[in-house]
Amino acid sequence: MALIDKESGTTVLHRPAESPPPRTWRSWLIGRPLPTADAPHQTIGKAVGLAVFASDALSSTAYATQEILFVLAVAGTAAFGYAFPISIAIVVLLGIVVLSYEQTIHAYPNSASSYIVTRDNIGALPSQITGAALLTDYILTVAVSISSGVAQITSAYSILFNFRVELALVMVALIMLINLRGIKESGITFAIPTYFFLIMIFSTVMVGFFRYLSGSLTGVVDPPELEISHAVQPVTLFLLLHAFANGTTALTGVEAISDGVPAFKEPRTRNAGITLIWMAVILGILFLSITFLAGQIGAIPSEMETVISQLVRTAYAGRGFMYLVTMASVTIILIMAANTAFADFPRLSALMAGDGFLPRQLTYRGSRLVFSRGILTLGLLASLLIILFQASVTALIPLYAIGVFLSFTFSQAGMARRWWKIGHLAPGQEVKERGSTLHHESGWTLKMIINGFGAFCTLVVMLIFAFTKFHDGAWIVLLLIPLLVMGFSAIHRHYQGLGKRLSLRNYGGPPRLSRHRVILLVGGVHQGTLSALRYAHLLSNDLTAVHVSINPDETARVRRDWELWGNGIRIVILDSPYRLLLEPLLDYIDEIDARRQPNEIITIVVPQFVPRHWWHNLLHTQTAFLLRVVLLFRPGIVVTDVPYQVG
Amino acid sequence: MALIDKESGTTVLHRPAESPPPRTWRSWLIGRPLPTADAPHQTIGKAVGLAVFASDALSSTAYATQEILFVLAVAGTAAFGYAFPISIAIVVLLGIVVLSYEQTIHAYPNSASSYIVTRDNIGALPSQITGAALLTDYILTVAVSISSGVAQITSAYSILFNFRVELALVMVALIMLINLRGIKESGITFAIPTYFFLIMIFSTVMVGFFRYLSGSLTGVVDPPELEISHAVQPVTLFLLLHAFANGTTALTGVEAISDGVPAFKEPRTRNAGITLIWMAVILGILFLSITFLAGQIGAIPSEMETVISQLVRTAYAGRGFMYLVTMASVTIILIMAANTAFADFPRLSALMAGDGFLPRQLTYRGSRLVFSRGILTLGLLASLLIILFQASVTALIPLYAIGVFLSFTFSQAGMARRWWKIGHLAPGQEVKERGSTLHHESGWTLKMIINGFGAFCTLVVMLIFAFTKFHDGAWIVLLLIPLLVMGFSAIHRHYQGLGKRLSLRNYGGPPRLSRHRVILLVGGVHQGTLSALRYAHLLSNDLTAVHVSINPDETARVRRDWELWGNGIRIVILDSPYRLLLEPLLDYIDEIDARRQPNEIITIVVPQFVPRHWWHNLLHTQTAFLLRVVLLFRPGIVVTDVPYQVG
Repeated sequence: MALIDKESGTTVLHRPAESPPPRTWRSWLIGRPLPTADAPHQTIGKAVGLAVFASDALSSTAYATQEILFVLAVAGTAAFGYAFPISIAIVVLLGIVVLSYEQTIHAYPNSASSYIVTRDNIGALPSQITGAALLTDYILTVAVSISSGVAQITSAYSILFNFRVELALVMVALIMLINLRGIKESGITFAIPTYFFLIMIFSTVMVGFFRYLSGSLTGVVDPPELEISHAVQPVTLFLLLHAFANGTTALTGVEAISDGVPAFKEPRTRNAGITLIWMAVILGILFLSITFLAGQIGAIPSEMETVISQLVRTAYAGRGFMYLVTMASVTIILIMAANTAFADFPRLSALMAGDGFLPRQLTYRGSRLVFSRGILTLGLLASLLIILFQASVTALIPLYAIGVFLSFTFSQAGMARRWWKIGHLAPGQEVKERGSTLHHESGWTLKMIINGFGAFCTLVVMLIFAFTKFHDGAWIVLLLIPLLVMGFSAIHRHYQGLGKRLSLRNYGGPPRLSRHRVILLVGGVHQGTLSALRYAHLLSNDLTAVHVSINPDETARVRRDWELWGNGIRIVILDSPYRLLLEPLLDYIDEIDARRQPNEIITIVVPQFVPRHWWHNLLHTQTAFLLRVVLLFRPGIVVTDVPYQVG
Repeated sequence: MALIDKESGTTVLHRPAESPPPRTWRSWLIGRPLPTADAPHQTIGKAVGLAVFASDALSSTAYATQEILFVLAVAGTAAFGYAFPISIAIVVLLGIVVLSYEQTIHAYPNSASSYIVTRDNIGALPSQITGAALLTDYILTVAVSISSGVAQITSAYSILFNFRVELALVMVALIMLINLRGIKESGITFAIPTYFFLIMIFSTVMVGFFRYLSGSLTGVVDPPELEISHAVQPVTLFLLLHAFANGTTALTGVEAISDGVPAFKEPRTRNAGITLIWMAVILGILFLSITFLAGQIGAIPSEMETVISQLVRTAYAGRGFMYLVTMASVTIILIMAANTAFADFPRLSALMAGDGFLPRQLTYRGSRLVFSRGILTLGLLASLLIILFQASVTALIPLYAIGVFLSFTFSQAGMARRWWKIGHLAPGQEVKERGSTLHHESGWTLKMIINGFGAFCTLVVMLIFAFTKFHDGAWIVLLLIPLLVMGFSAIHRHYQGLGKRLSLRNYGGPPRLSRHRVILLVGGVHQGTLSALRYAHLLSNDLTAVHVSINPDETARVRRDWELWGNGIRIVILDSPYRLLLEPLLDYIDEIDARRQPNEIITIVVPQFVPRHWWHNLLHTQTAFLLRVVLLFRPGIVVTDVPYQVG
C-alpha cells in the first residue's frame, strides 16, 4: 500500500492490483480475465475489412432470392419470371443506399452508427427510435442467419430437419461463447471463411452461366414440392411490392462497415469507403446472378430445401463433393453474419446505456473486455425467437429488415440535415456540435441531395414493407419499437431524476446526527444473541432489547435468561396475541419513530444464524431478511444483521 | 407501556397488544385473525364423533370393491365371484384391527396417534418410520379420495371426464382454503353430510337386497366396457392376494378415532371406544353388502363409470332423482374424507416438528390458529400427485394403504410391548414413562395377545401388499419412507447440534470487543454516500472509505469530490485492472482481517439506493446484497447497508 497524496486534510491511499484472479470454471469456458490495459488497438486493411464487415450483407444472398420466390409462388410458378426484374430494382436501391453511406463515412470517421448520426443531427427521440429499430434488427439478424444456416445443413442432410431448432440453438450458444471469449484474432479468422464463401459461390455462379450459355443447364432434378395453401392468385401490384420488400433483406448488413470505420487503417475513411463500394459491387453481382440462374433452373422455394441448395446441385449436376463444400461455405458465412450482430448489438446497447437509455450494467466490460451482458442478452433473445418461429426463415422474414430501413431513413435524413446546416455556414465559420466540428464545405448541395434521395428511397421501401407485410408479422415490430422507446424514456427519466436527487450541487450536507438508538431483537437467549448484544453495545449506549411474545413459556424463559445474561439492558416484551412476529415489532418501531428527532437514527440489530449448509436456512425463519424488506422504505432506520457462524 | 418488573438490575417493560390487525385480502379469503386465547375447547358426543372421524373410513366403501374387481378382471369376469369371499377376509381383518385399537384408546386417552404409541413404546427410529408412513398416506388419502369423488361426478356426467384433473385440483384448493379458515363449527357441519351419506347408501343397499330377494334385480344396463390389456390369465394365489391387498384400502381411516380421543365428551375413552365399534360395524356391513350386490348385478370396474354408480343406477333402475342424490352424497363423503387428512397431516407434522424431526415452522399456528404451513404443504403435495397420476384412483391405489398398515403394525406392536412391561411390574409398582404412568394391570396377557395378533395380521397384510403391488408402484413408497426417515434424522441432527452450539450452559460469554473498524464503501460521491458516511461516523472513529477503481475517470472524480465532502476521512483506492468489484474489496478485507485481533470487529457500511419502484433495482448493481452473501460465513465481519430513500 503506497501513500500517494495528502492534501486538503484527506489521506488518499492507493492499493495496487493483486495478481490476476484464479482460474475458475468460467475462465475455463471463456478464457482468463484480461486487464483493462489489454484493450486491442489493432487496425485492419481493406481486404480484411471486407471479410470482417461484409459477411452479414453478402450472406443475405443465401436467402433473399428464395424469399422473393416464396411470395411470387402464390401466383403460381409462372410468376417466378418477375423475380429478376425485382432483383434489378433492389440492386438500384442498393446503389443509392451505398452512395449515401459512403458520404456518411467521410463525415463520421469515428463511428457512423445510425444511432449517433440521428442523435447528433435530428434529435433524441428519433435516435431512440433508430436505436430500438437497430437492436430489434440485430436480434433478428442472429435468428434469421442461424435459421438459414441450419436450413442449408438440412437441405444437404434432410434427416436433420426435425432437429433444426436444437441445431440452431446450439449454434447460437457457440457464437455467444466465442463472443464472450472476445475475438482478438478477428482479422484472419474472418478472412478465411468469407473468401472461401466468395470463391465457392462465384465458382457455382460461373459454372452455372457456362452451362447456361453452352445450353447444357438443365432444370432442378427432383425439385421439392411447391407448398401453396390457397388457389393460384393473380399477379397484383401488391404481390410484386410484397416480393420486392422480401428481397430487400439483401440490403441488411450494408451499414456494418460504417459502424466500424475506426477499425480501418489510415486513411480510414477512404479505406472504409472503398471497401463499402467493393462490397456493394460483389453483393449486387451475386444477388442478380443467383436470381437469374434460379429462374433458369426453375428452382422452387421450400422449407425442405433452400433455393441455393437447388442451384448448387443443379450447377454441379448432383450432390457431389463440390456441392457439399459449397453448401458448407454458405452455412459458415451465415453463421459469420450472426457473429456481426454479436459485435454490433452489445456495442450499440453500451452506447445507449452510456446515454442513460438502457440499464447502466450494459456498459460494463466483462472479464474478457467485451460487453458480456449485451452478448448474453442478444443470445437469449435470439434463441427465444428461434424457438417461437421454429427456426423458419420465411416465418421470420416479415419481422426482419423493417428496422434496418427505419434506421437507414433516419440516418440519411440526419446527414441531409447536416449538409443543409453546413451549407448555411459562412465560409470560415465553425460550429462545434456533439463529437464533431462543422465548417463550410463546397458541393454541399449535391451531397444533401444524395443523402436526401437515399432517405426518401429507404422511407418508401419501409412504407412498402410495413404495408405489404403488416399482417404477416411486421405489426409486431411496429408495435415493439414504440414500446422499446417508451422503455428507454422511462429508464432515462429514472437516471436523470436520480442524478438530480443525489447531486451535491447546492447541497448543504446531511444534518448531523446526535442520537443513535439501537434496538436488539431477541428471539431467544443463546450464544448468537449474546454475540449480537456485544456488537450492539459497540454501536450506542442507548440500547433496548425487544422480544415478541408469541408463546408464554418461551417468553418466561427469555425473561429469566435475559436477567442473567442481558448485561442489565432493559428488555421490552411485545405481546402478540395473533402470533405475528413482524407486525408487533413494526407497531413498536412506529411508536418510537413517531417521536424520533430529525437528528436521531435508529438501528435494529438482528442476530442471525449462519448454518453450515445453505439448505439449513429452510429450517429457520428469515426474520432479518423480512424486516429489512419491510423497513427499506423508512428513512432513518437501518437494519443490521449480525451473523453468528454456527460450527 | 407498563413497567412490570425490576429485579436483578434489568428493567422489563411489557407492551400490551394492539387492536387486531387490519383486514387484508388474506382476511377476506380465510377470515379475520384469531387471538391465541380463542383456541377451541369444545367436546363432542358419540353421534357427532362418528360423523367427524368416520368419514374417511366409511368413504373407502366407495372404491374398495371396485379396486378388488380391477385386479380380478385380468382373470376375466368369471373371477369376480372371488370378490365376496375376499371381502369377508377383509372384514375379519377389520375386526382384529378395531379390537386392537379399542385397547389402544383406553391406554392413551390424550392421543393414541400411532406416532406417539410407537415413539413411547418402541423407540425413535420406528416412530420416525411410522411418521413417514403416516404423512405419506395422508397425502395419498387426499389424492385418492378427491380422485374418487371426481370419478363419481364424471360417472354421472361423462362430459366432465376430460376435466377430471382440473376438477380435482379445484376441490383440493377449496378444502385447503376451508382448513386454512379453521373449522370451528365442525360438529354439525360434519354430521349432516355423513348421515346423509349413510341414509342414502343404506337405502340403496336395502332396495338392492329387496329387489334381489324378490328376484327383480337385473344386471347393469349398458355396462362400461371391460378394459383388459392382456389375454385372460388364470386365477392364481398371487392374483387373489393382490385383490385382497387392494380391498384392504377399506381399512384406511380406521385409526382416525384413536387420534381424536381428546375431542370426545367424558368419559372420553369409553365414548371413543364405543364410537370405534359402531364405525367398524357400519363399515363392515356396508362393504360386504356393496361387494355382494356388485357381484349380483355384474358390475364392471372401469375408469369411465364407478362400480358404485353402476350399483346405484341398477338398484333405482335408471339415472333418476334418487341416483343423482345418492351419487352426490357419495361425492360429498369422499371430499369429507380428504378433509380428515387435512386435520391429521398438519397435526402430525407439528408434533414431529416439535420433536425436531421436521422444520420448526410447522409448529407455528397461523392467523386462524391452524397449522397453516402443514395445510399448504399437504394441499400442494396432493395436487402434485393428482396431476402426476391424472386423478386415476386405480393408478394411485398401489401406493396407498401400505403406509397405513406399516403404522398399524408398529402402533400395535408398541401396545403389545407396553402390556408386556405392565405385566412384569410388581402389583403397586409404578413406572413413569413419557406422558403416562404404568402400573400393574390384571388381564394384561389377553390384551397383549390381542394387540400382538393385530400387529401380526397387519404385518402380514403389509408384506402381501408390498409383494403383490411392488411393480405397480408400491416400490415408490418403500423407497420414499427410508428417504423421509433420513431427512428427519438430518433435520434432527441439525437442531440438536445447533442447540448444543448455542447453549449458554458453561458459557463464559463472548470476549469483550475493544476495537470497531468501520469501512465505508464509496462507489461515487453523492447524497446517499454522505448519508452513509454520517451513519458510519456514529459507529466508530476508526473509519476508512474504500473505492474500487474500475474506470480511471470515475476514480479521479471520486477523489476530487471526497476531498471536498469526505470530512477528512482517509480513502483507500483499490485498483481493479480486471474490472471486478467484489474481488479487490475481498482481497482488501482479507488483508485487514488477517491482522484482526480477537477483540476487534469490522463493519462494512454500504450506501444503498432505495428507488421508488422495485423494478428500478434492475437498473442498479446490487453490491450490498452480493457482499453480504459473500461475507456471511466470515466471523467478526458485519455488513450494514444504509438505505437512502430517493424521492
